[in-house]
Amino acid sequence: MAEQPTRLMVAVNESTLKGYPHASISCRGAFEWALKKIVRDNVAGFKLLVLHVQVPDEDGFDDMDSIYASPEDFRSMKNRDRIRGLHLLEFFVNRCYEIGVACEAWIKKGDPKEVILHEIRRVQPDLLVVGSRGLGPFQRVFVGTVSEFCLKHAECPVIVIKRRPEETPQDPVDD
Amino acid sequence: MAEQPTRLMVAVNESTLKGYPHASISCRGAFEWALKKIVRDNVAGFKLLVLHVQVPDEDGFDDMDSIYASPEDFRSMKNRDRIRGLHLLEFFVNRCYEIGVACEAWIKKGDPKEVILHEIRRVQPDLLVVGSRGLGPFQRVFVGTVSEFCLKHAECPVIVIKRRPEETPQDPVDD
Repeated sequence: MAEQPTRLMVAVNESTLKGYPHASISCRGAFEWALKKIVRDNVAGFKLLVLHVQVPDEDGFDDMDSIYASPEDFRSMKNRDRIRGLHLLEFFVNRCYEIGVACEAWIKKGDPKEVILHEIRRVQPDLLVVGSRGLGPFQRVFVGTVSEFCLKHAECPVIVIKRRPEETPQDPVDD
Repeated sequence: MAEQPTRLMVAVNESTLKGYPHASISCRGAFEWALKKIVRDNVAGFKLLVLHVQVPDEDGFDDMDSIYASPEDFRSMKNRDRIRGLHLLEFFVNRCYEIGVACEAWIKKGDPKEVILHEIRRVQPDLLVVGSRGLGPFQRVFVGTVSEFCLKHAECPVIVIKRRPEETPQDPVDD
């Protein structure tokens, strides 16, 4: 029917859980949902655009007790961030490759809300898929949600996939 | 990949524009978007569930100047509603048939917000697609929006397709 593949942007982030490998539970859920329910076996009909926004402050959290004594310390910190980001993308790119669906993946730094909106304006996907922890209104006040912001402001249709209740970690704000 | 087709519910309503044939601009837009961007040529991978909620009060609006003198008057009014609802569904079912995608369509009466939630709970679609007039916050106060309500409360992922600016009728609350 349509000639150009449907360009499906997925916003991904790292898990906040110690020891959880790379991708957050909710962004993995959203990604897998999109493959299973939307892409299905029509791999030629879709292209996945995987965007990871690194939050400088958050990523530096582990370094609270570090001592910075030289420019080299910062270079190695930046290098470590870069490697972590690449590890995250590698997971999604490998998954697309396994299935045979075309993909592009890239990293940006900044506030996820603003960067996602900006990247949507720039690459103009047909659809944005984001995961959400599915927090209640009380918990949301403290943590804010990227998904709600995208729903309101994105210039393309947005689909929010809530984390399944059985996948909720001990502290529900973790992901 | 998945064996069962993805069950895609589309909520449809009549146009409020006089002379506009049957389906509202925004629900047609949402339906066509889903066919073009999600279903594409993978017609075996999807089943469309077309739900039309008739609002008793709204449908009775044309009858403001009518005089009801017998039970027969009410029967004929109900019959007329039934025929209008069927005409609306016919459009969508025909479109699915043309494309070759399986569908089911049905009519319920009541408050669209509540009925859509109820039907989602009952038929458990994988995804709800609804159109939206894309009104600003000021206009929304007066007309309310079914799409926002579904986004907040539906038990399945929801995708809201905004009416394209160039399709806005003279009065933007019309559709």
